[in-house]
Formats: sequence, structure tokens, C-alpha cells
Amino acid sequence: MLFEKIAALMPGGEVKQGCFVGVRGGRIDYIGDTPPSQEYGERYDGRGKLLLPGFVNAHCHVPMVLLRGYAEDLPLDRWLNDKIFPAEEKLSGEAVYWGSFFGIAEMIRGGVTSFTEMYFFCEDIARAVLESGIKCNLSRGITCFDDSSLSELPSFSEARDLFERYHNSGDGRLYIDMCIHAEYTSTPKVVREMAEYAKSIGARMHIHLSETKAEHEGCRHRHGKTPAEYFASLGVFDVPCTAAHCVWVEEGDMDILAEKGVFVAHCPTSNLKLGSGIGPVARMLEKGVNVALGTDGAASNNSLDIFSEMKLAAILQKGAGCNPELMPVLDVLRMATLDGARSQGRQGSGEIKVGARADLAVVDLESIGMTPLHHVPSGLVYSAGSRDVVLTMCDGKVLYKDGEFLTIDIELVKSKVREFSKIFG
Amino acid sequence: MLFEKIAALMPGGEVKQGCFVGVRGGRIDYIGDTPPSQEYGERYDGRGKLLLPGFVNAHCHVPMVLLRGYAEDLPLDRWLNDKIFPAEEKLSGEAVYWGSFFGIAEMIRGGVTSFTEMYFFCEDIARAVLESGIKCNLSRGITCFDDSSLSELPSFSEARDLFERYHNSGDGRLYIDMCIHAEYTSTPKVVREMAEYAKSIGARMHIHLSETKAEHEGCRHRHGKTPAEYFASLGVFDVPCTAAHCVWVEEGDMDILAEKGVFVAHCPTSNLKLGSGIGPVARMLEKGVNVALGTDGAASNNSLDIFSEMKLAAILQKGAGCNPELMPVLDVLRMATLDGARSQGRQGSGEIKVGARADLAVVDLESIGMTPLHHVPSGLVYSAGSRDVVLTMCDGKVLYKDGEFLTIDIELVKSKVREFSKIFG
Repeated sequence: MLFEKIAALMPGGEVKQGCFVGVRGGRIDYIGDTPPSQEYGERYDGRGKLLLPGFVNAHCHVPMVLLRGYAEDLPLDRWLNDKIFPAEEKLSGEAVYWGSFFGIAEMIRGGVTSFTEMYFFCEDIARAVLESGIKCNLSRGITCFDDSSLSELPSFSEARDLFERYHNSGDGRLYIDMCIHAEYTSTPKVVREMAEYAKSIGARMHIHLSETKAEHEGCRHRHGKTPAEYFASLGVFDVPCTAAHCVWVEEGDMDILAEKGVFVAHCPTSNLKLGSGIGPVARMLEKGVNVALGTDGAASNNSLDIFSEMKLAAILQKGAGCNPELMPVLDVLRMATLDGARSQGRQGSGEIKVGARADLAVVDLESIGMTPLHHVPSGLVYSAGSRDVVLTMCDGKVLYKDGEFLTIDIELVKSKVREFSKIFG
Repeated sequence: MLFEKIAALMPGGEVKQGCFVGVRGGRIDYIGDTPPSQEYGERYDGRGKLLLPGFVNAHCHVPMVLLRGYAEDLPLDRWLNDKIFPAEEKLSGEAVYWGSFFGIAEMIRGGVTSFTEMYFFCEDIARAVLESGIKCNLSRGITCFDDSSLSELPSFSEARDLFERYHNSGDGRLYIDMCIHAEYTSTPKVVREMAEYAKSIGARMHIHLSETKAEHEGCRHRHGKTPAEYFASLGVFDVPCTAAHCVWVEEGDMDILAEKGVFVAHCPTSNLKLGSGIGPVARMLEKGVNVALGTDGAASNNSLDIFSEMKLAAILQKGAGCNPELMPVLDVLRMATLDGARSQGRQGSGEIKVGARADLAVVDLESIGMTPLHHVPSGLVYSAGSRDVVLTMCDGKVLYKDGEFLTIDIELVKSKVREFSKIFG
């Protein structure tokens, strides 16, 4: 495909006007002010539009779209124990497959080209990923409440099988990560064994970290360490790792995260909605911690919309810190694109440059909400919404264009989601 | 118009399924489970849709859509002095007219049927209001930096003329309120005189109150009173009053606001984005203060979208207070509808009941972001967006339907906004 006369969000945030971007073999092959001499097949009229790197949703539980709006305004323990856990008991692989497909469609429509996922029924999620054309770092959540070894856990067998069967599948679109759900749902033994296993197979790790005050303080009480100190001591951060939430991390924790190159998946909507709190994200950035953006599951959001997360991430730190200079737009855009791709170990994605993977989104710059447009990057963060996305492309393949899904029968998927969402009662 | 087989959000939050709602003479004339015997003209197939009271944007500076994205991520003093004030110097009545028209279009598209406005070039705003068909409580912002009497201020002459000429015009769609911009931009003399004048003519008041810590502390320093104590002592709260922001109000201030029946216009996006802070809204509600929702101007938001404000209002208090039970969805919906209408003195609006003004919006319940729909009110607050609005009606007249504006030439207005937004350089 050849994008013609399009504005492009370049590395560093410069907006290059009226340029030509050629895509071939899943990669960006040409960027120039003039038309290329080579042929790139279909031509896309990019006037009035912006080409940007596709967004990365760095923390998600995608099948939970089935539970969108199922449990609201409840304290976390009742939310989990009275509503979410009993509902999840009723899930089947088929429900997870259709729920995942639908959540993926919502993300694709909003310009998301890759997401980092933690759940169960992972084979069914993998099928939805592979069929939809999106990218995903998928992990089976591991929990352990007794003195089992990792190898004794059925969930670990699933994770291992998943890795052997699916890692790097779909021409590298699907990665399988290893996972410990959280400190309070596991034991030091399985955490250490999982870190060693992940290192041995070259997998990344995905964990929840210091999401709530109760978790953070409880870990101190149980282990004499903060969750970050705990995971660091057990070798988890010696593996490339995504740590979701990090709301209650302390100064020393941030030093650990920065030193170890851990990627924080900041999920501001979910953290607010569940009453978890407001994480020290501006401080993390100041200390050199890598931060990406996630939606968490739709049960606690209720959308899978990176535009909303960008805007909230930007304004929440300003408001909580009473400092409008915190979280400037280019930082936020980088969190949602390049740093998201880096958090997934997808070094060749997240930027518009020759040779990069063609994981791209196109945004209409002429919508009502984007008019007038004094500054393109700030328009993206503060004014745009997922409905302004007019094209989403993954590895050079168009997945969504002008309201149409090219790999998903959206009406079928929607009807299946309606059907399966009834199982919760 | 007759809405057939539509779900309706009834007073108190009950959702009545499959009902018939007849509109005649600008009012809701019939609500029933069966078709009415009377004729209501055009029929509207309401299956899969929700009828709700139109939203009220309780604090806005609508022409500032011209400055959407013009100044970002700056400290308030530089934002105002280096960017906004110099830009406003360049405004003309014509620019304000087109900017207002465009902002009104954005609001109508998002289901807003009325807004409370404070700005200058008010005749031009009034024209846009009257031509567009929306409702508005409009006020000329009054400032005074010397020892003038109110009657000596040109801005007061404008306000008085505006009231005489436009109050209750457009069949009661346009109200003119009186206004003091803020404590720090006026003097006790003009504040007292304005309160007396407003009382004498039966007008409402609109002020900014305790938006920033600097303003709040500065008032204490200048007058030995908080801004709420200051305005109360000068008689402002003896007039029905909307006080925008109230981020830094203290316990005693909230007691005053509750006792005097002042309506707080809570503007969470603007308060965060400008680094003003997080207001104690849950506490205000607990103390019986009336709270409505506003977007503020697009220069500090950057949208005029009440869905975003509802979601942020709901989740921000939960997150800041670490308590997900704060700000339940029905409270937030009431703030955006009924309490907004009450804040404008529009007692016959804001609810779906026979005899109420037909200020209504229709939301598509079958969009991707709203599927599945376990609970309609929470879907409205947490999952819906302004793009899910498929019809907006004011006083029984359809202003927007299925992407089309019926009173606004949106392409013309958009092109004018592009043209006039260039004046700022």
C-alpha cells in the first residue's frame, strides 16, 4: 500500500506533512516528500489524515469484555469475590474465544495493533489473535496457594504447552510470555521457579505489581519486602518484564524498576474506577522507569480505548500533582506506541521509519472534535477518540478501514458476545 | 414525534423497556407501555435505543473551541498570560459567532441540550444559540481592577442590555444570567452591586470559585475569607448561583454552598489538565451540595463532551478517595441531567415525565463499546461516548439525527472555524 500526501507522526514527535509512505512485505519500505519510483499496490489518499504508529495496549484481560458493566461501584473484595470470580467460573473456551474476538475488534477499531494479555483459556485467545490479524503477547496467569512446585501446577503445563505451540506463531504476531499473576496469589517458590524457567526459554514475564494499597502493605507484612523488592529478590526482573499498575510503588521500588528496565503498564482508568489509587507515573518517568499504557480488562474500564488512556494519563498526573507541565503529550504518545512495542520485545515496531514493521493507524484530522487543529500531537492526546481512526494495519495488512473490519465478521461476533454474556445471570 | 418501543431512563434511574413516548408542543405528552391513541406525527423506531434527558453542560466558554489545542502543558500563568489572553485580544464578534456555532454543534452531537456560558461578545453567542436551537444560560463575564462602581463598567452595560434584549428569548431557550468572573478579578464593591442588581431583576449568577490553590489562598490573604465566605458575605449566594470548579473549597465552604443551595459546576477534565487539582466532590455530595457537570472551555479540555466528564467525575473520586463506592452511576447521571437543568433554573427539564420539556437525547445501545450491556445506567456513564448519540431534541425539535445536523450547516461552520482559528498565529 502507498499512503499518499499524508501527515506522518515521525520518531520524536515531528509531524511530516504531505508525505508518501510505501509498505511492502509487512514493513515500511519508503518515506519521502515525493512519490516513490517503485510500485506499492493500492494507493491511499492521505489528505486530511495522520499516519501514526499503531497503539500498544500493554495490559489487558481481553475476554473480560463479556463482563463489561457487569459489576460496578463495588469495593474490590466484593467486586472480585461476589461478582467477577463467580462469573469467571462460568466461562468456557468458546465464550472466551468470542469475547476475545470482540475485544480485539474494539481495539483494532481504535488503532491498537498489539496488546499484552493475561488470562486463562489461552488457546482460545490465541485462535482469536491469529484469526483477527492483531499482534499479542499472551500469557497464562499463574496462581498458587499451596506448597506446590511450579511443575506440579496444571496452569504451568498450559503455559509451557502454549509457549511450545504458539510462541512466535502467526509470522511472529503472537508471542507467548510467562506470567505470575501477583505476589499475593503465588508463593516465593513458584515465583522463583517461573523466573528461572522464563529465563531458560527466553520468554518475557508479565505480572501485577502494587495495584492496591492492601496488596502492597500485605506483601510487606508477609515478606518484609515491597512487591517490587520481593519480585526482584526472586529473579523476576532478571527477565524482561511488564509490571501492571504499580500504583503504590515507593521511591526504592522505582529505583529497582528503572535499574532492571522493567516496563510499567500504567492503567489509569482501571486504577481510578476500582478505587486503587493514583500511581506516581510522572515521578517514575523522571526516574527513568519505562512506562507503557494499558486499559486493563473491560470489566474495570469499561473500554479498550487507548485514546482515553492517553488523555487520562496526561491530565491525571497534572491534576494530582497540581502541575500542568507533567506528562507532556510527546511522552504520552511514546508510552502508547514505541514504549508499548518495546515492552513487548517488538523492537522493530512502534515508529514510522524505513524498515520498521508496518503496524500503523490512520486518524482523520478533520473530525468535529479535532477542529481546529493547532498542534497535531496534542490533538491526538487531548482531542481525538477511537472513532477518529479510519484505518488500522498490522504487519502491512489492513484490518480495519472506514468502519469495516476486514478480518472479523463483526455482526456475528457481536451476536455471539450477546449470547455468551447471558451465562453470568 | 412518537418514540416507539424505546428504552427510557426514568426519574430515579429506572430503565423502562419498550415504551412509547409522545412529544407535542415542546413537551413530553405521553409515556406508556402501549401506543397512544393520539397522533404525534413522525414515528421513531426506538428498538435498541435509549431515550434519556438531554445533558446540561453547566460551565462552558463555548467560543474557546477556536483555541482547542492552542496552548497545552503550560503552567496556568503562562497558559493565560502568554497564550490565552493575547489570543482573546484578537477575537472579533464574527469569530466568536462561528466558534460558538461550532462548539454548540459539538455539544448537540453529544446529546447536550443546554449549556451555561460565560464569555464576552455575548450578542454573537446569543445569535448562535438562537439559530442552532440549543438552550443556554448566557452571561457576560464581569471583571474590575479599579474602584469603579458596577454601573461605570462597560461590561455591565453589556450585561444589562443583554438581559433586557435577550432574557427568555427564543421561546425561553435563552436565559441571561449575571456574572462576576471571580474574586481575584473583581472588587467587593462591584460584587455586592452585582448581587443586588441580579436579585432586583430576578436573574441568576455565574461565578468561578476556588479553582486554583493560588486563588483560594490569595483570597484568604486579601480578604481574610475563603472565596465562598467572601461571595456569601457580599450577597452573591442570596441569588440562585452556579459556582464553577470549587476545587479547593473547605468544610466550612461546603456548608455555605449547601445551605445557600449554590450549584457547583464540577469540571474534572479542565481541573486536571490545568493542574488545578481534584475537588472534594464526593464530600460535597455527602454534605448535600448541589453538583452539576461542566466541560469548561475547549482550550482546557479539549472537548465539549459530557460523556467524558461523567466517566471522569465517577472514576476520579473513586481513585482519589480509594473508594469505588463513591459517585455511583445514578448520582453522576443526575448531575449531568436533572441537576444541570436545576442549576439553570429550568425546573421543567432534565427528566422524562409527562409535562416535562422535551429536551432529550437518544443513545444507540448496540454499538461495539456498549456491548454487552449488563446495566444500562452504568453503560451510559462508563461505556458510552458522544458518538453513540443518534438523536438530540430540544423543546421537541430535532436538532441532530443519525449524523446530520438539522439546524446547522456543519461544513460551512467548520470551514469558518478553520479560517478564524488562524487569527491567533
